[in-house]
Amino acid sequence: MGGMSCQIRVVERAMADNEQWFTEKCEEGGNAFGLRIKGKLHEEQSRYQKIEVYETTDWGNLMVLDGYTMVSSLDNFLYHEMMVHPALFIHPAPQRVAIIGGGDCGTLREVLKHPEVEQVTQIDIDERVTRVSEQFFPELCESNQDPRAELLFIDGIEWMQQAKAGSLDIIIVDSTDPIGPGEVLFSADFYRACQRALADGGLMIQQSESPLIHQLIIQRMYRNLHDSGFSDVKSLFFPQPIYPSGWWSATLGRKGAAIEGFREQDVAQRSFETRYYNSDIHRAAFAVPEFFRKILEPQS
Amino acid sequence: MGGMSCQIRVVERAMADNEQWFTEKCEEGGNAFGLRIKGKLHEEQSRYQKIEVYETTDWGNLMVLDGYTMVSSLDNFLYHEMMVHPALFIHPAPQRVAIIGGGDCGTLREVLKHPEVEQVTQIDIDERVTRVSEQFFPELCESNQDPRAELLFIDGIEWMQQAKAGSLDIIIVDSTDPIGPGEVLFSADFYRACQRALADGGLMIQQSESPLIHQLIIQRMYRNLHDSGFSDVKSLFFPQPIYPSGWWSATLGRKGAAIEGFREQDVAQRSFETRYYNSDIHRAAFAVPEFFRKILEPQS
Repeated sequence: MGGMSCQIRVVERAMADNEQWFTEKCEEGGNAFGLRIKGKLHEEQSRYQKIEVYETTDWGNLMVLDGYTMVSSLDNFLYHEMMVHPALFIHPAPQRVAIIGGGDCGTLREVLKHPEVEQVTQIDIDERVTRVSEQFFPELCESNQDPRAELLFIDGIEWMQQAKAGSLDIIIVDSTDPIGPGEVLFSADFYRACQRALADGGLMIQQSESPLIHQLIIQRMYRNLHDSGFSDVKSLFFPQPIYPSGWWSATLGRKGAAIEGFREQDVAQRSFETRYYNSDIHRAAFAVPEFFRKILEPQS
Repeated sequence: MGGMSCQIRVVERAMADNEQWFTEKCEEGGNAFGLRIKGKLHEEQSRYQKIEVYETTDWGNLMVLDGYTMVSSLDNFLYHEMMVHPALFIHPAPQRVAIIGGGDCGTLREVLKHPEVEQVTQIDIDERVTRVSEQFFPELCESNQDPRAELLFIDGIEWMQQAKAGSLDIIIVDSTDPIGPGEVLFSADFYRACQRALADGGLMIQQSESPLIHQLIIQRMYRNLHDSGFSDVKSLFFPQPIYPSGWWSATLGRKGAAIEGFREQDVAQRSFETRYYNSDIHRAAFAVPEFFRKILEPQS
């Protein structure tokens, strides 16, 4: 999930060679990303959105929700690893985890790689996304039967408002854009509910769009997270080719503690494989580009 | 310059809304990147290549060579800063610099920001690229009259073969792809000429394509750089939205010394502004993703 800031979708048939491409045009950025496809594997209108799956020539399968690219087989490891491992290795003992959104189950799989995790609840309103992912991205769903995992298909905001105070160590908001239905997930109201549900030292992480294109969204997130009582807010940066500009960010808020340090020994001795993440990448992801530092300076 | 691994260019007129887009399709990757355009500002066939300039709606001007996106006003700072500042701040006293390619002059401008630099020679075979850049990217050419700068429009490989041994501190290869005319710039022969021209401790840096798509090219570069006598070879990674996958790399070779450490004090006290680069970004750029580590392991 994640990365939906764009508005026009075109499946275009190149006349010269009969190639077919899926292209997502990012209206607010004036940029587009496309993948060459062999054909469409699936299309349905769920209660909440149009779900499509394409078979690409070089990027494996591609899931598209309401015209926005969500997940490709080739590059989703970048996004899923960075939505999970930095936060879980910053926390000293991440036992109780909630995922809001994340219906493709790639984030859930990464969370369940951590032996410290005792319980993960994934709350995505659209069960059909998970069922389609089970069919076309089985590798992302390989841990869905883990006894520590609970999959709920209900409203994530209500769930969070009703969560017991201090009952979570990690909240991962693996949602669509702050445009349309995902907007409320970027509101101070929702952040307050998350802050309440977290135990002291707990961390929230949310995908936060392109550092190059969506600076206003990121500035608003920082304001709302601070206003909601989070003690520290920081962003991390990573490549994600299928999302607009190919450069993406996630933003963390922590309750009652600074976002610093991580269990580096545990990263080195981890029992699972990663494809992008390691200790060097952890540190690197938090490096703040010079221009980004400036957009976060308080407006005078 | 840089980033030319793709082969089909399409200016497409979206039927729905009469929008015009410039799209570069990366054949070997099966992916495409597009920018919405207002129109074409310039087109000419130079002795060496077709040069086009488009006015985009959101990314400023866009220069295209033989159908490959080269430079946009919006995002070129990422590439130009990373092709220059890490290498020049690793070197203890970068006085003599050569740029092979780099006709848009953005790399030259960044080099000339360093007060230690006494002489920069830019060798690009196609003078027309520089003249077009002066017209449509004047900000990149603002240092072309600096008395320390020499612009030559001749063959860069011959120039390097004839350079005095040990006469350079830094070589920046800001070239097109290792497909077609740029191929020889990725050969062991050329690297040997560079290694010879460098003084001890000198550094060469060359754009090295997408870590996600062009792994074979990068593996070959490492082999050729080691075979040419460079003591250490390392890559750095950075976002570059207009190049295929939006994630790019540059690879450094150093003569007679390891690629490690940098003049961090001088970065902190630098007399010039940067938009991406700073000390944290310097360290972060050298972080090696887990999968990349594996592709560089010696084949057994």
